[in-house]
Amino acid sequence: MEYPSKLIEDAVNQISRLPGIGKKTALRLVLHLIKAKEENTYALTDALSKLRSNIRFCQVCHTISDADTCTICTSHRRDKSIICVVEDVRDIMAIENTAQYNGVYHVLGGVISPVNGVGPADLKIESLVNRLALSAAEIKEVILALSPTMEGDTTAFYINKRIREMSVKISVIARGVPVGGDLEYADEITLGRSITGRTLFN
Amino acid sequence: MEYPSKLIEDAVNQISRLPGIGKKTALRLVLHLIKAKEENTYALTDALSKLRSNIRFCQVCHTISDADTCTICTSHRRDKSIICVVEDVRDIMAIENTAQYNGVYHVLGGVISPVNGVGPADLKIESLVNRLALSAAEIKEVILALSPTMEGDTTAFYINKRIREMSVKISVIARGVPVGGDLEYADEITLGRSITGRTLFN
Repeated sequence: MEYPSKLIEDAVNQISRLPGIGKKTALRLVLHLIKAKEENTYALTDALSKLRSNIRFCQVCHTISDADTCTICTSHRRDKSIICVVEDVRDIMAIENTAQYNGVYHVLGGVISPVNGVGPADLKIESLVNRLALSAAEIKEVILALSPTMEGDTTAFYINKRIREMSVKISVIARGVPVGGDLEYADEITLGRSITGRTLFN
Repeated sequence: MEYPSKLIEDAVNQISRLPGIGKKTALRLVLHLIKAKEENTYALTDALSKLRSNIRFCQVCHTISDADTCTICTSHRRDKSIICVVEDVRDIMAIENTAQYNGVYHVLGGVISPVNGVGPADLKIESLVNRLALSAAEIKEVILALSPTMEGDTTAFYINKRIREMSVKISVIARGVPVGGDLEYADEITLGRSITGRTLFN
């Protein structure tokens, strides 16, 4: 496609690098920005660059955070004896929405996936092992809340192998969530049930 | 939805103001930006702010342009005696892609739509009238290439009323069954138009 302006071409190319956005959608967005108030574009670019330069990760659970330690890890109302292991921050948001869980989290940052070149060392698994070792007396249970997919199961299996010698109960969320589905798209009731109905790993 | 970070919330809110992008998609894009290289985000914000601050419009045809006059209006190869009136720059790109047109354009910037509060004064119709009046001897034909909708028809009707006294031929793009489409699936109005507007086989 030939663009009437180099500025448009650059903007379309940058926007269409985002996942799920093609050149046609990108062009539609660009023309919208040109038509809309100038401030709108600056508010958008400002939010994005601030996001990228200021974003931090909780040093305890590795979730996205505005401070060195996230609000869940610092809260006195949360039960620090239960750690829920999840893939990414969207899973935390989904579980928080169910209002069925009052423990803390551990964000792996992905799941083991040889196809995509993701091994155990690329995830925060070592950090989880250390976290358990450092406060073995306090932590009673680790809930593995990973997507019910091949990669999620592999990751759960690997984590279980690494921590089963420790005196901590290991559970997985109940298979109330549809197998093959993505955790973030599960409805609240199904996801809530899957937490209350968790079973022992072995 | 509650976000784990104010930075994420701001970015999601800004992105979801774009047309056709909801909060879930916005969050997916934000998490993608956080995971991807930092430069990607800066390349995106840079392209967008440059776009918004440097974009100009051709002073002749009002299309988006990098200079005061667009490449089509300045080209010596284009036939300046035919002006094709379109709604926006996407229509120019679509027509240019056909390689069937060698004249110049006039971009209205929209169509008359009382529902959306767009009247003739909000469009570049006065500018078209002036353009025709200023070079009456040179311009032979005005092609109205507007969408075949109620708003497009109203706009074409209004423009015709404004310029019909001038000694310029006014035409509209052909309406009929789409090439490659099955005749039985064409709607009644389109099929009816294609019969009343039939042309000689040659």
